Amino acid sequence: MQLPLRIDPAAGKSLQLQITEQIRLLILDGRLVAGARMPASRQLAQDLDVSRNTIMAAFGRLIAEGFLVAREPTGTFVAERVAPEGPALLPLVDARPSAAAEQRRRRRLKFRGEAHEVVAPHGHELEFDFWVGRPDARLFPLRHWQALLMRKLRTGARHLCEYGDPQGVLALREAISAHVGATRGIAADPARIVITNGIQEGLNLLAWLLIAPGVEVVVEDPCYRGAAHVFAGHGATLRPVAVDQDGIDCAALPAAALAYVTPSHQYPLGVTQSLARREALLAWAAAAGAYVVEDDYDCDFFYDGAPLPALKSLDRNGQVIYLGTFSKSLGAGLRIGYMVLPAELCEPARKAKALLNNCQPWLEQAALAAFITEGGYAEHLRRLRQLYAARRNHLCAAVTHGLPEWRCSGEGGGMHLVVQLPARGPDAQAVEQLARAHGVGVYGISHGNARLWNVGGDAALERVLLLGYAALSETEVSEALLRLRQAVGTGVVSEG
Amino acid sequence: MQLPLRIDPAAGKSLQLQITEQIRLLILDGRLVAGARMPASRQLAQDLDVSRNTIMAAFGRLIAEGFLVAREPTGTFVAERVAPEGPALLPLVDARPSAAAEQRRRRRLKFRGEAHEVVAPHGHELEFDFWVGRPDARLFPLRHWQALLMRKLRTGARHLCEYGDPQGVLALREAISAHVGATRGIAADPARIVITNGIQEGLNLLAWLLIAPGVEVVVEDPCYRGAAHVFAGHGATLRPVAVDQDGIDCAALPAAALAYVTPSHQYPLGVTQSLARREALLAWAAAAGAYVVEDDYDCDFFYDGAPLPALKSLDRNGQVIYLGTFSKSLGAGLRIGYMVLPAELCEPARKAKALLNNCQPWLEQAALAAFITEGGYAEHLRRLRQLYAARRNHLCAAVTHGLPEWRCSGEGGGMHLVVQLPARGPDAQAVEQLARAHGVGVYGISHGNARLWNVGGDAALERVLLLGYAALSETEVSEALLRLRQAVGTGVVSEG
Repeated sequence: MQLPLRIDPAAGKSLQLQITEQIRLLILDGRLVAGARMPASRQLAQDLDVSRNTIMAAFGRLIAEGFLVAREPTGTFVAERVAPEGPALLPLVDARPSAAAEQRRRRRLKFRGEAHEVVAPHGHELEFDFWVGRPDARLFPLRHWQALLMRKLRTGARHLCEYGDPQGVLALREAISAHVGATRGIAADPARIVITNGIQEGLNLLAWLLIAPGVEVVVEDPCYRGAAHVFAGHGATLRPVAVDQDGIDCAALPAAALAYVTPSHQYPLGVTQSLARREALLAWAAAAGAYVVEDDYDCDFFYDGAPLPALKSLDRNGQVIYLGTFSKSLGAGLRIGYMVLPAELCEPARKAKALLNNCQPWLEQAALAAFITEGGYAEHLRRLRQLYAARRNHLCAAVTHGLPEWRCSGEGGGMHLVVQLPARGPDAQAVEQLARAHGVGVYGISHGNARLWNVGGDAALERVLLLGYAALSETEVSEALLRLRQAVGTGVVSEG
Repeated sequence: MQLPLRIDPAAGKSLQLQITEQIRLLILDGRLVAGARMPASRQLAQDLDVSRNTIMAAFGRLIAEGFLVAREPTGTFVAERVAPEGPALLPLVDARPSAAAEQRRRRRLKFRGEAHEVVAPHGHELEFDFWVGRPDARLFPLRHWQALLMRKLRTGARHLCEYGDPQGVLALREAISAHVGATRGIAADPARIVITNGIQEGLNLLAWLLIAPGVEVVVEDPCYRGAAHVFAGHGATLRPVAVDQDGIDCAALPAAALAYVTPSHQYPLGVTQSLARREALLAWAAAAGAYVVEDDYDCDFFYDGAPLPALKSLDRNGQVIYLGTFSKSLGAGLRIGYMVLPAELCEPARKAKALLNNCQPWLEQAALAAFITEGGYAEHLRRLRQLYAARRNHLCAAVTHGLPEWRCSGEGGGMHLVVQLPARGPDAQAVEQLARAHGVGVYGISHGNARLWNVGGDAALERVLLLGYAALSETEVSEALLRLRQAVGTGVVSEG
């Protein structure tokens, strides 16, 4: 540790006094915190170009004053409790702005974005939480992952010290190319892939590339809140279009530069876009000269047969931008997502990623590439699919049995179930509160990280609950359902 | 692996034929790549809800045709060489845009940013590369780091599966708070710190918060190219101000919303801003109602005594935004930097980070927090400082001895030396090329990831070379200097 002391041999004070005073002020001002280790006296003497005796005398004085403590043989430390006496560190520069200048500076904030919620706002108070999009951390392939990290560090540690390719580690892009080819029907050259810090960063890069203030963007109504906020934050004019059981209503699409959709498992309503609608969407994009952004956030989980290929797999003209993530299948703490881009957007996206933050961290990319290429990822997905399917079955059965008026849908894939509450009785917000009072988290659309405009004025949407089930075992689901029955049965709203 | 097959029992073809044709097309179209493992027949039969015999018959046909190969006992794979016969996968959707619509879509690209170079453009061709800002990967504390990663995974692996705090892991912010307090004189509450993907991302977040199109930003001339491009990319009007031996000329500052400076070790010229200039800069900010962004990119390396405290340590009025990084002291492949913010920018920055990419990956943050708190980081810095100081001394001596007309400066800190070439003889660009022909990388200002306007019209700036020395051992420095002497001695430009 090098201390920021400024010693002036020409000052009117002794060197020892200058050092004593400055260290005292650093401690009083909280810049040197309790327990911090002081540099060795020999080192500090050398740094300040003074004799070691001067340093030792200053330390001795500060120990006597109670600012420092010596602990033989380890060294000298800032005392745990320093009485808040003496003056705080004086302003070194008297540059206090006038009230007007201060106001002017504060008005410079131009950011007007709203944040979205990726963690349940009251999750820590709940015993059973059906928050959306959470994988079960207990199923993470920890030993395998540890082994991969160690292997990559043994052979490639120099990459820890280097800037990487802004598009991402090539081996990972190759692995993703093979994976999305085989599982999603997408022919993705690794040169068309950019690794991002989750889908969220992909949305930002796209907004930077494509959205000037006033640009019109079609979104599903309701849609993922994080996307709506990013596009709006870059100045887009959002055009929400209603979703029915076949996905976004393609007869109602207005002219726009971009459409943002979740065809595999609509977020939040859980429907799968029909093939006819997909064809209509691509035809609309061709006529409008628009891009379609396909967010395939939980495509790894289809439970009843083979998945419908991605919308991107139908795209012969480079109109579709595909976004994928490992946040659902492995974990959001890894922060790895990717984009598959039309040719003309690759170079701009690469530049934008370099300007944004140079690249993603190396180690997790390298480990994930090996995990996919060596078959571990496919194996992990197979295991998750079985377990999540069992949990889904268990939840559907428990709802049907215990709360027969609740109608389930969206169960074909993904990680959450969509419940339509009966037209009479408490609405989604009321059930949220009742459940919370019983230690269970369930979420209406607006509290489930989605944005609802309800352009169709559909009252049923106020009665939709989202139940994320992937992170809960069957036993936990059973217990949570008992609580939900009690909660809804009591019908009394109380704050838990 | 789940294949995206769509089987229609009501179609006029047998199930087996449908499966055979669709897999063949997936292979011909490159969506199933050579060597890819096919799903087990039992699994595929279940996914498609057909009999296993149907799958085995389809596989048998494809093996006979040479599309697949069976490798007992491991499974069935896509053959390595498939003759490109038969039709490619037909467009499933005939949504070809008109030429006009196609043009319209392509014109939607609004991004006009220029990328900067964080890796040496010809580094792979060079034997000795004085590229700027590179630490020595051979000095990375690998064993310690591996142990920390494993420890954190043992106790906190659930964080791999969760979204974290957008501001960053609290333990890391606390560790950084203590570190910048003790070493840079900055009183930084952990609540005022945001962890970013390097300083580069911090610059972007600030641009998002503060820069509307047309906002004026003061930058040093020359300045770090990555910063200039980000600010310009967000629409700022840049106001370059000349740098002399005391840093940016504070008498010449125009009115602006923001000033971006590198006071500790100016990038690229290596000068340290004087205390008087710092006071003048803060007074300017107070009068203008402006923010000052302090980029302290290589502050960990001061070799001749204690460092001057950070500009931020003089800031009593919350005018200074401080940016720090671990890219120089540990490695850029970790992608960890941080911002210390004035109070009123904390909540907006937190929101912007959440909207940008939710948060940074967990594991490296957790490991780094322990590394700092337990003293490993201070120890590592001490070791680097000794070695880098020795390399710097060696390089200065070698230049003085071998190329006595070259004048060195900027040697007080950081990781690069600034060389002023003599007024006669080849200029920086010519020396760059001569050196490259001899396998040595040296860089003039414009090729050294800096942006030069030269508002002062100073011809000497065309004769500045940057020599990053941290990544080269003393032996390597000696050899590289011999080559440089030869290169400059020959005076003949040839392409290496």
